[in-house]
Order: sequence, then structure tokens, then C-alpha cells
Amino acid sequence: MSVIGGTGPQGSGLGYRLARAGHRIILGSRDPQRAATVARQLTDRLGRRAGSVSGASNRAAVEASDMAIVAVPYAAQRLTIEEIAPALTGKVLISCVNPLGFDAVGPHGLDLPDGSAAEELQRCVRHATVVAAFHHLSASTLLGEAPLIDEDVLVCGDDPEAVAAVCELARAISGRPGVAGGALRLARQLEPLTAVLISINKAYRAHSGLRITGLPSGR
Amino acid sequence: MSVIGGTGPQGSGLGYRLARAGHRIILGSRDPQRAATVARQLTDRLGRRAGSVSGASNRAAVEASDMAIVAVPYAAQRLTIEEIAPALTGKVLISCVNPLGFDAVGPHGLDLPDGSAAEELQRCVRHATVVAAFHHLSASTLLGEAPLIDEDVLVCGDDPEAVAAVCELARAISGRPGVAGGALRLARQLEPLTAVLISINKAYRAHSGLRITGLPSGR
Repeated sequence: MSVIGGTGPQGSGLGYRLARAGHRIILGSRDPQRAATVARQLTDRLGRRAGSVSGASNRAAVEASDMAIVAVPYAAQRLTIEEIAPALTGKVLISCVNPLGFDAVGPHGLDLPDGSAAEELQRCVRHATVVAAFHHLSASTLLGEAPLIDEDVLVCGDDPEAVAAVCELARAISGRPGVAGGALRLARQLEPLTAVLISINKAYRAHSGLRITGLPSGR
Repeated sequence: MSVIGGTGPQGSGLGYRLARAGHRIILGSRDPQRAATVARQLTDRLGRRAGSVSGASNRAAVEASDMAIVAVPYAAQRLTIEEIAPALTGKVLISCVNPLGFDAVGPHGLDLPDGSAAEELQRCVRHATVVAAFHHLSASTLLGEAPLIDEDVLVCGDDPEAVAAVCELARAISGRPGVAGGALRLARQLEPLTAVLISINKAYRAHSGLRITGLPSGR
């Protein structure tokens, strides 16, 4: 399992949480030296836990995994796709990219030609399966030590098997499966919803997250 | 307090819950007879509780209140605005309109010229203050009897006093204040998020809702 853009706050936070749950994580970066440095820091934090974190180039990280989380800033997505596209055939790519803008009024979603960063990614890498998930876990929460027991992970995608795999992966982070939230195009809702959470964080000095209510227990 | 489009499932559900909490609710409708009929049904359900429900035309309902919830289908919004616009000066209008489309892939948000139904409403009635809220409470849940203790009400608006008033109003429905979620333009996120909840409902046979995690207790 790899995290592309794994040295940023969101990517390293997701990598840390997944490794803590026992996964073998490869952090990918444009700068493999930097990836190795962050991997060493996270390895120190893991201590005697079962998982592991190593570092590599984005391309090498994808080559070594069947599933990769894309956690780059939206502005870097195109360049990243060029780096990793040749290694993606048949793989599951999880997009947690939040394309946001900030102006005097506050945070807001960007108008995107494909509707969402996840759909843009899927259009560019038709030989891979893109699933949108993990948008709403704040980096500072992920990089903290407190268990994430309140948050749900929303998962949108067009391939039921890939969606089910990502829902299962979410268990490593939130302690229960992710919530399947419809087709990949609904990433248009997941991504800019982060602007609402950032607004809430500012108003309440909080690290807010989302929980889905009304689900059957033991789903 | 009035509910415009108060005879539909969402409008009558919100009216019922607000009345149950002690509010005096006027259900507005294009058809005042129909509004009176639904008001009588809800009054029967209220029994000896303190609140009340009456029926009126949309125009008369707005004239009699300082605050109104607009709960019409998006397709009826323009016609409704024409009906009520002359009575709106200085009032707070709460939009819970969800402009959704449905096709073979499932539910999705509509592309709107103003970005959201709430922003369209604000553009058309500049002499009123529009706040977006109450999008994610399912009509069947609102019309049931079980207390709504898990859901949060997200509130977006540009006028801090109006937002605070709507957050306070939400207490009547969910037992605690609504959550201020940023500027009115973020209604673009609240409205189509309902497509995700409908997708969840279908996948899990649930009546799903949203809760915001990580907020300070006693906010």
C-alpha cells in the first residue's frame, strides 16, 4: 500500500494511521530522500507496532503496490499523474485531493473542468480504477495519537469491488468500514465539503469531522 | 415562523418538529385549503403540546412571520419567489431546497446558474436575508416520532445574526444548536450533499443523516 505525495501533512498522516493498524506503507514523493526521512520519523513513532513505513519515489511506490492513495495538492496532480501513469495499469487509486480556493470570504471549492479532482484523475488514467475517499480527516488529527473513533470515511466510486476494498481499508483508520456514498462523480460533493469543515474549524476553534448517522449497526 | 411549501414532506416534517418544540407555525401553500388540511392533521398529532400549526397561502404565511423556511421543490422556486417577494423586506428566509437530478447512475447535484438554490433565492430577493439550513434531515425521519438526537443541522449564510438565529432555531429540531458552516456560497456544498446521503440510504437501506464531530462540548 503506498501513499503518493506521502510527505505532506495529509499523506504522512494517512500513512502513519494505516501503518499503526498494521499495514506496510510506502510513502512516495517527488524527492525520494525526503520520503525516506519522513518514513524514518514515522517508523520511530510506530515503535514496536506491527506495521512499517518506508520511502521511495512516487513511481517506485506505485510500482510496489496494488493500491495507492493520491494525497498531493490539487495543483500538483497533473505532474504527479505524468510521473506515475505508466505504473498504474489495473491498480486502485484512492483520491483524497481537496481542490480548494481561499479568498476574503473564506474557503470554497474550485470550479474544475472535470467536476472533481477524482474524475480528472480517472480521465487521465483510464487503465486504473479511481475511488474517492479520506477527504475529511484533518491532517493534525491524523498525525495525533488519539484514536479516530467518531469520524466516518465517505467512499465514492464506480467499481463496487474497489469501493468495498477502500471501505475495508478505512477500518484501519476509523475502526469501522468506510461508508459507500455513491458514484465517483459524487466526489464533486466530497472534495469541496472540506471548505465547510474548514469554516466550522475557524468558527469553533475545532478540528471537525463527519459522521454518518442512521446506519444499521453491524453493517 | 412560517414554512413556505409547507404541505410537502420536507416542509410539513419541519413544521411538525418545530411545532412540537413549542413554535407557532404557519404552513404556507399555493393552495391555502390544502395548507389548512395538513395543518389540521399536524395539530391532531401535536395533541396537548404547546406549539401550534395553522395553514395559509404562501404570501399570507410570509406576511405573518419574521422568519420563513422555503421548502419548495427547486423546480417551483421561481414561481414561489414571485408569490412571496413583496412580503419579504427585512425578513430571514431559510432555504432547505435540494436541487437534485436522478439518472441511470443515481442522484446528483444540478448545475445551477447561481451555484446553489440558496444563492439564486438571495439574488432574487435582495431585500431579505437568505440562510441555507435543514437540507439533510430526511422527510420520513422528520415526520416520525423518534427524537432527532444524532443529526446536526449545518447552517451557511453571510449575515452573522441571521446565522445565529437559525442555529438557535435548529435546537428545536435536533436538541442542540445548528453548526455554522461558513458563507452562503457554501450552500453549493450543502445542497448536493443530499445526493450522497440518498446514495447511502440506497446502499444501506437507511435514513442517513450527518453529524459534525470534533466540536467543543457546550459550544
